[in-house]
Amino acid sequence: MDFAHSPKVQGLVDQLEAFIDREILPRARPWREAALEGQYPEFIAEVQNKAKDEGLWNLAIPNLPSDAPGERLTNAEFAPLAEMMGRFMGAPKAFNCHAPDVPNMIMMADAVTSSQRQLWLDPLLNGDVQSAFAMTEPSVASSDATNIQTTIKQDGNDFIVSGRKWYISGAKAASFHLVMGVSDDDAAPDRRHSVIIVPANSPGVRFVRPTPFLGFSEPGAPAWEIAFEDVRVPAENLLGESGDGFILGQTRLGPARVHHCMRAIGHCETLIELMQMRASERTAFGKNISEYDSIQHMIARSRIEIEQARLLTWSCAWMLDQEGFKSARQHVSMIKVAVAHAYQSIADRAMQIFGAMGGSDDTPIRDAFSWARALRIFDGPDEVHLRQIYRLEPKPSKPLAASPQILKPSA
Amino acid sequence: MDFAHSPKVQGLVDQLEAFIDREILPRARPWREAALEGQYPEFIAEVQNKAKDEGLWNLAIPNLPSDAPGERLTNAEFAPLAEMMGRFMGAPKAFNCHAPDVPNMIMMADAVTSSQRQLWLDPLLNGDVQSAFAMTEPSVASSDATNIQTTIKQDGNDFIVSGRKWYISGAKAASFHLVMGVSDDDAAPDRRHSVIIVPANSPGVRFVRPTPFLGFSEPGAPAWEIAFEDVRVPAENLLGESGDGFILGQTRLGPARVHHCMRAIGHCETLIELMQMRASERTAFGKNISEYDSIQHMIARSRIEIEQARLLTWSCAWMLDQEGFKSARQHVSMIKVAVAHAYQSIADRAMQIFGAMGGSDDTPIRDAFSWARALRIFDGPDEVHLRQIYRLEPKPSKPLAASPQILKPSA
Amino acid sequence: MDFAHSPKVQGLVDQLEAFIDREILPRARPWREAALEGQYPEFIAEVQNKAKDEGLWNLAIPNLPSDAPGERLTNAEFAPLAEMMGRFMGAPKAFNCHAPDVPNMIMMADAVTSSQRQLWLDPLLNGDVQSAFAMTEPSVASSDATNIQTTIKQDGNDFIVSGRKWYISGAKAASFHLVMGVSDDDAAPDRRHSVIIVPANSPGVRFVRPTPFLGFSEPGAPAWEIAFEDVRVPAENLLGESGDGFILGQTRLGPARVHHCMRAIGHCETLIELMQMRASERTAFGKNISEYDSIQHMIARSRIEIEQARLLTWSCAWMLDQEGFKSARQHVSMIKVAVAHAYQSIADRAMQIFGAMGGSDDTPIRDAFSWARALRIFDGPDEVHLRQIYRLEPKPSKPLAASPQILKPSA
Amino acid sequence: MDFAHSPKVQGLVDQLEAFIDREILPRARPWREAALEGQYPEFIAEVQNKAKDEGLWNLAIPNLPSDAPGERLTNAEFAPLAEMMGRFMGAPKAFNCHAPDVPNMIMMADAVTSSQRQLWLDPLLNGDVQSAFAMTEPSVASSDATNIQTTIKQDGNDFIVSGRKWYISGAKAASFHLVMGVSDDDAAPDRRHSVIIVPANSPGVRFVRPTPFLGFSEPGAPAWEIAFEDVRVPAENLLGESGDGFILGQTRLGPARVHHCMRAIGHCETLIELMQMRASERTAFGKNISEYDSIQHMIARSRIEIEQARLLTWSCAWMLDQEGFKSARQHVSMIKVAVAHAYQSIADRAMQIFGAMGGSDDTPIRDAFSWARALRIFDGPDEVHLRQIYRLEPKPSKPLAASPQILKPSA
Repeated sequence: MDFAHSPKVQGLVDQLEAFIDREILPRARPWREAALEGQYPEFIAEVQNKAKDEGLWNLAIPNLPSDAPGERLTNAEFAPLAEMMGRFMGAPKAFNCHAPDVPNMIMMADAVTSSQRQLWLDPLLNGDVQSAFAMTEPSVASSDATNIQTTIKQDGNDFIVSGRKWYISGAKAASFHLVMGVSDDDAAPDRRHSVIIVPANSPGVRFVRPTPFLGFSEPGAPAWEIAFEDVRVPAENLLGESGDGFILGQTRLGPARVHHCMRAIGHCETLIELMQMRASERTAFGKNISEYDSIQHMIARSRIEIEQARLLTWSCAWMLDQEGFKSARQHVSMIKVAVAHAYQSIADRAMQIFGAMGGSDDTPIRDAFSWARALRIFDGPDEVHLRQIYRLEPKPSKPLAASPQILKPSA
Repeated sequence: MDFAHSPKVQGLVDQLEAFIDREILPRARPWREAALEGQYPEFIAEVQNKAKDEGLWNLAIPNLPSDAPGERLTNAEFAPLAEMMGRFMGAPKAFNCHAPDVPNMIMMADAVTSSQRQLWLDPLLNGDVQSAFAMTEPSVASSDATNIQTTIKQDGNDFIVSGRKWYISGAKAASFHLVMGVSDDDAAPDRRHSVIIVPANSPGVRFVRPTPFLGFSEPGAPAWEIAFEDVRVPAENLLGESGDGFILGQTRLGPARVHHCMRAIGHCETLIELMQMRASERTAFGKNISEYDSIQHMIARSRIEIEQARLLTWSCAWMLDQEGFKSARQHVSMIKVAVAHAYQSIADRAMQIFGAMGGSDDTPIRDAFSWARALRIFDGPDEVHLRQIYRLEPKPSKPLAASPQILKPSA
Repeated sequence: MDFAHSPKVQGLVDQLEAFIDREILPRARPWREAALEGQYPEFIAEVQNKAKDEGLWNLAIPNLPSDAPGERLTNAEFAPLAEMMGRFMGAPKAFNCHAPDVPNMIMMADAVTSSQRQLWLDPLLNGDVQSAFAMTEPSVASSDATNIQTTIKQDGNDFIVSGRKWYISGAKAASFHLVMGVSDDDAAPDRRHSVIIVPANSPGVRFVRPTPFLGFSEPGAPAWEIAFEDVRVPAENLLGESGDGFILGQTRLGPARVHHCMRAIGHCETLIELMQMRASERTAFGKNISEYDSIQHMIARSRIEIEQARLLTWSCAWMLDQEGFKSARQHVSMIKVAVAHAYQSIADRAMQIFGAMGGSDDTPIRDAFSWARALRIFDGPDEVHLRQIYRLEPKPSKPLAASPQILKPSA
Repeated sequence: MDFAHSPKVQGLVDQLEAFIDREILPRARPWREAALEGQYPEFIAEVQNKAKDEGLWNLAIPNLPSDAPGERLTNAEFAPLAEMMGRFMGAPKAFNCHAPDVPNMIMMADAVTSSQRQLWLDPLLNGDVQSAFAMTEPSVASSDATNIQTTIKQDGNDFIVSGRKWYISGAKAASFHLVMGVSDDDAAPDRRHSVIIVPANSPGVRFVRPTPFLGFSEPGAPAWEIAFEDVRVPAENLLGESGDGFILGQTRLGPARVHHCMRAIGHCETLIELMQMRASERTAFGKNISEYDSIQHMIARSRIEIEQARLLTWSCAWMLDQEGFKSARQHVSMIKVAVAHAYQSIADRAMQIFGAMGGSDDTPIRDAFSWARALRIFDGPDEVHLRQIYRLEPKPSKPLAASPQILKPSA
């Protein structure tokens, strides 16, 4: 048991912190203003190039192709870096460590053909384009993936993709979409679905409307609803084999959830910092607000929740590295529930300390509050993960009366 | 003790329900679409005229001038009507029962000169114009009203109003603003402030930007930040006497809070109805969602919270009628805290049951979630009201050891 | 809508308060010390006689036989009196208004034969004896009453009662037990059970052990586990008809739950009083504890919860009076959940303010904490009542898409 | 970062598990029955000898004298062992790893004179006697240690100890008490107190009464209230120097809190196991209780809380080892709050699933529920630790407006 970073990770943490302090935070305001417009700032490419030059690139892809630019860090090694990036929403993009591209790259890395790699994956790895993952559908409970209704039907050398998806993060900026749909109605339930690469400019890809959550979309990656209206895609765009949809989805969803949690924890640190600043400046009824112990308790409880959320996330990342997704499934579900709840509580407290300002666009509290709420739903609602945690919990093999903990009641 | 409505109130409830079913709900969609644009729908005047014709007008003003159009209902009589209007955000406008105009009319009714009445109050009572109340300031904790910094300085026959206000509900649509500011620095703390009528088109009234809360503004009454830059207003625009600011504010804030609570409870009923509809239609893991008892508990707990919130609000309204604001202060603070919390919890549950759709603009859940959160801050944050509740709680007159409830410990 | 007491009730409230102040509280310490020994104090009969003389007797039995001593109050009239008695655990006994005798008397009043009345009910009405109700069984989830396994088998002119019951309040002091058991396995599920009067001294009634909950039993009525070992009881001891068990149980459980809630609310008032006393006397880190706003919030939140719990309970009592148990079922379940939760929260806060002393026997906080926890289980656990609340909630008749609250999403 | 045990620790874990399975659990019932009587079972010495023979002895004393029997483990190494012992309340005694003796031994190890070691410490290290720590006083808020009023006055070659202490764990079984009191009123606040060894049989040590918390005392170590009535103790019984009281107290309180947390987490594992057993056996309304998802959620949430509590506790233990108590103070306060809350929540859920049985003495749930509640008060109430966490949180050095996270609002 060891809670310290290795020298390598500590070195990266220090380097990253210096980079963020030097290159990102001084430009935080225009960055956030661009985000409010659904954009990345114009200078993003410049920052990305600096990061690439420093080797702070593609840090989050354990299965990074050996000839691709970037570090091949483990999940546990990436954890403190992701958290640091998460302190400023938008920062991960500078390091090509942002959603949804990272989970997409992880999913693609082991599945692409060499032609797919060249056409679709390499530009992503270089940060030249963005991608999207189209899974959730408006008309069914998509958290039970067997409900998915979009179809991917073979038609000669093509597939025809038909269906409606929404809450597709980064949809508008993506050059292609990874679409999950039913390719074989008659297969076993876990072999019915496939993932196919749909170029964004394909005829029949209709952008219906933006779908922000509580008015919020992730910086630079606004979510949209898209109608795939009989979109014709060449057969070579299928990712993996027909029927691989669920397996591919799983390789993607694990990291997606873990990274969201890591970044959320970093954002919670920002919230604590802001709460402290605000409390130390406001006065009510003759006292500085920070002298009220109810305010002190809000900060202290947030600290406890952050530490617990971080350790659980680290241990999950470590377990993913050691034993793979299957063994870590209960932990992934645990952090999904726990981190989103901590994040929501902390954002709620920060909002209360900031008063009306906390609901305005002037601070990231409003973003945190919306995003935390979304995270209790996105990538599976609380209820689905609690169910999963329960099912993965070992069941007792003997009856209650046989437990040595139970006193035999009087005859 | 009697929990039934009087025949008069029951008659109004029935009439109002029929009116809403006939005139408002069939047009709910364009109404809400207009609200998303910060507007009332074009047909609002037509609906208002019908309501006025039916006598469903100005129902919420206990001190309604005897020669003004409308019913002079007590707070308790208005309660079930307000709740019914609250089921659809925007409906109160149809009956001239909406914020912030109603609290403004109540504040003005007993304070206006005959000239003020003619110029400013009567058009409000007729529903011809809208008004706003400018109190909260960005740079101080306005919940402690002694912090307010805007100044109202006499200059010959005029006053000069200077300061910055934000979160002014309905600011953009208002023909005049009731501005709270410091008129006499040297007076006793509770006589330092005045309220003055500032016409919206006065030179120096600068509309800075909209200030939605979590991206949300009340339908038809978007909030704004306004800079009052040395705005010159004739002395006859002062409401009441110089120094009356706090007293006037109190006559306004009591009803403002109570009405918000009443409407919120109505909105909670809508949320329960929507949760039931949604749960009965979605399927996950082989079962209709409504069969999961965790979902059933969410609805049941919401029902408990609504009933408790309603009864507390009714009893507060009744106490306001019987004994006036001073006696009801603890109750006003109690409903302010309790209803906002119930509303937030219920909106949170509804959002969870709706999944991503709950965060979209397609349902009022997103409005409820934002507005409930705002209500924990607007008109005084939880902390200020909890403090007030504590201070109004009778203090024990004898030491603990004298309580008959305490066993004398062994010598 | 009216929240004031009638003059009659106000008169009784004043009279009761004076009686308690004069006759009970000065003797509270020996009373509580006796309770810790599982007894009523020796002077209880003397206090009861005074109460009877004053007409403060049998206040809680709406179906009180017209020739029996006592007032025939409605549930709503009794509510504030029950609450006042509840401020001191044990006080209800002085007025023959205590559990489990009152629900037993209510159940018996409409069901007894004249011989049963003379033998069993009249002594109860006079306060000469105590009774018990034996329903819960150790080996099944008794909250689903169909699970009950004790049998009541006819054998000539007798019935043979066989089974194991526990958590029988007041078992040791009772002169007879009202036992619920299966009398006809083949009947419809709601006609399988009967209630029979079992004299406590019948051969085969074996007292197994006391069953306090968290070490606590109600004052003077310690709960026990009893084995009914083929207990022979004359056929005339059957209450009502064979198969009436569930109906009888329901006439009993409604009032039992409502009265528990009323008393619990009174006890919460005691807890608030004690918290205030304690907070005003203790000092930590240079400040009186009552100056910490986290402590103030604990008291304020308790006040909010009490007021809400009281109003819900009053409205439930009123509904029982107006429309009977069937119509009030949802409300009975709501108070069962809401009051127990408020009681537990308030007791938890009081314990925190009292520190270690709160866990000792020196204050009633320890009793409140245990009893509140028990009330989340006794007479049906939270889960059963939440299920009931959900099932009694009206279900929507139209699909979600037809709701005027829902925006039709883009085509 | 590494979450695996070292081979040494894993070996001890395996050995300990086997020992508990073989020597302790088969005798769990008589053990617990003895505990209900305030005793250890008669066979405890036999089990202790076996543990000593196996080297499973004094595992929790990092500063164990090199010539004393036992392992010198770090806090982090001890953590998983403590947790395993905690699964059965009472088990720690078998390994001389129980409270309050372990914290007492840690406090004494670096402070005793050689004579004190021989007389008082060695018998403890051998498990021949028990000790107690007398700190909390009934008449002041002892969580602010400066409030302590017991006096330790020099009188020639003796000290006179005078004062009243309560909630002294293990008081009745102890052969000596470590008493904290004021030795020098005029010293600096943190040098006013001393700790002195008071033999239990000294004249003037009056055992007033047992002080269980919610009717519960730790197995074999019932707490008592003691009056120290001018107890004369030889000067050589002073621990350390006069004025060392607070320093000594701190060396003791850190481990005391950490060990309580470790054991509590183990007990939570027992609660999960019991919940699973019970849920799988009970049926209500036609379904096995374990099929209700509300029950599944209770177990899943408990799992999340346990994992988070464990990791926080491990990281705290690791930090204690790496950097000492001063650096770990915030973490100690965090686990003190977090673990007690998780424990209380989990015990509450277990009680709900067990129904009335959960409040009985038949299961350890009742012990857990009481003990968890006590832990929110003992060794410092939540409020004191939240205050501490807040105070140890770094304060921001720049004003809010200078934060890059804040958008400069429009001029």
